[in-house]
Amino acid sequence: MEKRNATAAVIGAGDFIGAEIAKKFAFEGFTVFAGRRNGEKLVPLVQEIEKAGGTAFGRSLDARKEDEIVKFLSDADKHAPLEVCIFNIGANVNFPIVETTERVFRKVWEMACYSGFLAGREAARLMLPRGRGNIFFTGATASLRGGIGYAAFASAKFGLRAVAQAASRELGPQNIHVAHLIIDAGVDTAWVRERRKERMGADAVDKLPPDVLMRPAAVANAYWQLYQQPRDAWSFEHEIRPFGERW
Amino acid sequence: MEKRNATAAVIGAGDFIGAEIAKKFAFEGFTVFAGRRNGEKLVPLVQEIEKAGGTAFGRSLDARKEDEIVKFLSDADKHAPLEVCIFNIGANVNFPIVETTERVFRKVWEMACYSGFLAGREAARLMLPRGRGNIFFTGATASLRGGIGYAAFASAKFGLRAVAQAASRELGPQNIHVAHLIIDAGVDTAWVRERRKERMGADAVDKLPPDVLMRPAAVANAYWQLYQQPRDAWSFEHEIRPFGERW
Amino acid sequence: MEKRNATAAVIGAGDFIGAEIAKKFAFEGFTVFAGRRNGEKLVPLVQEIEKAGGTAFGRSLDARKEDEIVKFLSDADKHAPLEVCIFNIGANVNFPIVETTERVFRKVWEMACYSGFLAGREAARLMLPRGRGNIFFTGATASLRGGIGYAAFASAKFGLRAVAQAASRELGPQNIHVAHLIIDAGVDTAWVRERRKERMGADAVDKLPPDVLMRPAAVANAYWQLYQQPRDAWSFEHEIRPFGERW
Amino acid sequence: MEKRNATAAVIGAGDFIGAEIAKKFAFEGFTVFAGRRNGEKLVPLVQEIEKAGGTAFGRSLDARKEDEIVKFLSDADKHAPLEVCIFNIGANVNFPIVETTERVFRKVWEMACYSGFLAGREAARLMLPRGRGNIFFTGATASLRGGIGYAAFASAKFGLRAVAQAASRELGPQNIHVAHLIIDAGVDTAWVRERRKERMGADAVDKLPPDVLMRPAAVANAYWQLYQQPRDAWSFEHEIRPFGERW
Repeated sequence: MEKRNATAAVIGAGDFIGAEIAKKFAFEGFTVFAGRRNGEKLVPLVQEIEKAGGTAFGRSLDARKEDEIVKFLSDADKHAPLEVCIFNIGANVNFPIVETTERVFRKVWEMACYSGFLAGREAARLMLPRGRGNIFFTGATASLRGGIGYAAFASAKFGLRAVAQAASRELGPQNIHVAHLIIDAGVDTAWVRERRKERMGADAVDKLPPDVLMRPAAVANAYWQLYQQPRDAWSFEHEIRPFGERW
Repeated sequence: MEKRNATAAVIGAGDFIGAEIAKKFAFEGFTVFAGRRNGEKLVPLVQEIEKAGGTAFGRSLDARKEDEIVKFLSDADKHAPLEVCIFNIGANVNFPIVETTERVFRKVWEMACYSGFLAGREAARLMLPRGRGNIFFTGATASLRGGIGYAAFASAKFGLRAVAQAASRELGPQNIHVAHLIIDAGVDTAWVRERRKERMGADAVDKLPPDVLMRPAAVANAYWQLYQQPRDAWSFEHEIRPFGERW
Repeated sequence: MEKRNATAAVIGAGDFIGAEIAKKFAFEGFTVFAGRRNGEKLVPLVQEIEKAGGTAFGRSLDARKEDEIVKFLSDADKHAPLEVCIFNIGANVNFPIVETTERVFRKVWEMACYSGFLAGREAARLMLPRGRGNIFFTGATASLRGGIGYAAFASAKFGLRAVAQAASRELGPQNIHVAHLIIDAGVDTAWVRERRKERMGADAVDKLPPDVLMRPAAVANAYWQLYQQPRDAWSFEHEIRPFGERW
Repeated sequence: MEKRNATAAVIGAGDFIGAEIAKKFAFEGFTVFAGRRNGEKLVPLVQEIEKAGGTAFGRSLDARKEDEIVKFLSDADKHAPLEVCIFNIGANVNFPIVETTERVFRKVWEMACYSGFLAGREAARLMLPRGRGNIFFTGATASLRGGIGYAAFASAKFGLRAVAQAASRELGPQNIHVAHLIIDAGVDTAWVRERRKERMGADAVDKLPPDVLMRPAAVANAYWQLYQQPRDAWSFEHEIRPFGERW
């Protein structure tokens, strides 16, 4: 592994997608700054990266707090120039609109949209003076579709997509690649397996054929593809789903 | 004017679009409840409606406050069954993303998205037991496009559109018509004229040909068309722009 | 019925949607020119319109033939100025892509797209010198979605939508209203009832509740709404579906 | 270069994009079958590939002829299993709709849509029995937008996109990756340079900064990224544009 003088920040470094993104960029030589609510939970991830010869820092981060985002990204940038910032916080909930409390609506927005705005803006502020950088956002089916029960979640994801679009149009000409990765499918996480079991029975999980659910590593790989694009052929929106997915 | 035993609530009854919506529904026989931040400013509107034989009530309303929305719509519904609720609050601002403060981002969302969610949810709660009603939301170009400088505004408008979509899918089968009216153009308001003058010179306003800007009354008319649709042919999304508009 | 000095041409005046459009515009005072492959079948429609005091002409028309379209619209325009041209030819077929013959693919395109281009272009040529007119196209779910088995049909409908968009952008500023009406649901026709029976059993048709399928008259009504829009608030795309439709 | 027992067919192997795609896949070890109207013009491309140790065959191909497409792909498949089929024929013309002849409209469709259907269908027929393969289509800005003057071109490109969508939904679950690459910008070709000079003056070409126009090789690279995607994270639609492009 050849080390780079560059950091990649992963905001929302959960056990599945976020962890795989962190590992991928670490194994490609980036110093990784990984943030999540409870930074303690990042210890195994950091150890795994370090064991493989990589460099990573795990931090407790409430991404809804402006000062915490500022500090997190600025610390990353001080370590080495911030080259990649990936915002990966979800907040997938489903309630009928009449049962959606204002607290839920607000909290989902703060987690999935407002904190994404903060992250994107702060990353841009650090990258603009150097005239380079990559800011990527994780989207979902609900980024494009307000389905039944998704008033809160889709509203936040639509809102995040708008932030990404505006950022892309503003920052692209300044050599900062902004992209929005739409994961249009279930990713293979504990939570998705549990829901699948509830809906379809135990066999739907125990005898799950390969590649029906998207591996978290495949998401990380998609981000890596985005990172590798030459600047005369950048994608803004990039959608991925497993081969057998209905859409 | 034949009076109906029905109220129409207009949330965001500003001097232009909102006022015209209020008048249109009042002149069609609805009792109108009009709400805006400073209820004092509604006096002339209410007088105009009453002079023409209609019925209207003007109220001070901070639509970002859940209890105020609840009270406003519940008062309207007590007067006569709430048949139409139109959410018409905008918050059009333009800032480069790196100059968008967290305060602006949050406030624009609270005005243009969060309060729309509250209004739609409360209207639904009142309408569902009766199995009928109409909930309409005002959209804009920024509902579909995150343009340069619109990170905050487009984020809120995208988010509102998602609320409307989810509400439409949930409430349509329960006989509640939810629609999202996209105004893809400048409406003829004092503010738009001012901006036009700045950009294009005084003549662009003083010698403005007819129908280049959309009349607020045309927006009211579009809502009236939506209201009149039979339930076997409802529109969810309805876009309007002047004949000469570039799009 | 007050007669207008204006004609409305309906291309694809089939037994259901097309016939209702013809009647609606005839009853509103237009002279109607109705065209379909076998003009004989238009006799009852013309009689119904005449009995009600309207004026209509039924013509055999193969809309895939440029000279026939030219003659049909030019005859209409000679009778009285062509004010409305509605293109309503469908060609809904479903085949797996590997079983779609080149003949089917081509024929569906000729019926649903190519002839729509011819109709729109010729209507524009007649309307432009007078600086007014309305050109409307019937779209479908497949105008926006290439679903399984719809390679041929969706390809034609997508293509027609592009024609409508380009026409709208070109002709709008010249005071010609071009619109694309997306019928995102099954319309209550003999063919749809038959398919419904096959899929869901006889009861799904015999005991069909009202407003589950869209009445052809509701489509005609939607076109009438488009026609009535003031030019400072024209819709280009207008989608309609029944209240209970899943989308 | 490690040779693969697999062919890649490039339909529309023009001097720029098509040639780069051919080279990329040849250099990655595929036997390339390249087709274009005048096969003579493929000699230098084939020589360049062979000189580098690759294998390629250049063929005259009128892709609008069903029998020619069948033979071209079947020959490719006989040489080695057809693993990749890329349809890359454009037909970019711009005419006001009223000046668009039926001949132009039909021809553009035959080149850019109908032949794409034939290519996709025939590739699918060859790939399905083996349960694997990749079918990619080149899209453009006009795949999503019917702009002024683009009635013919956008209609064909919209139509091709529908074919690709239907194919993707049908063939994905059978392990065939269908994708639609939207090039939302000018590519650096002789024709684009010429138009740029006309519009913006000689300096806009002679002093063209790097990466303002997309290199044809970047398009080839995008196709290579699509080919490399694991099947649990396939993209259907993939859009690319240069960093400074307005969109």
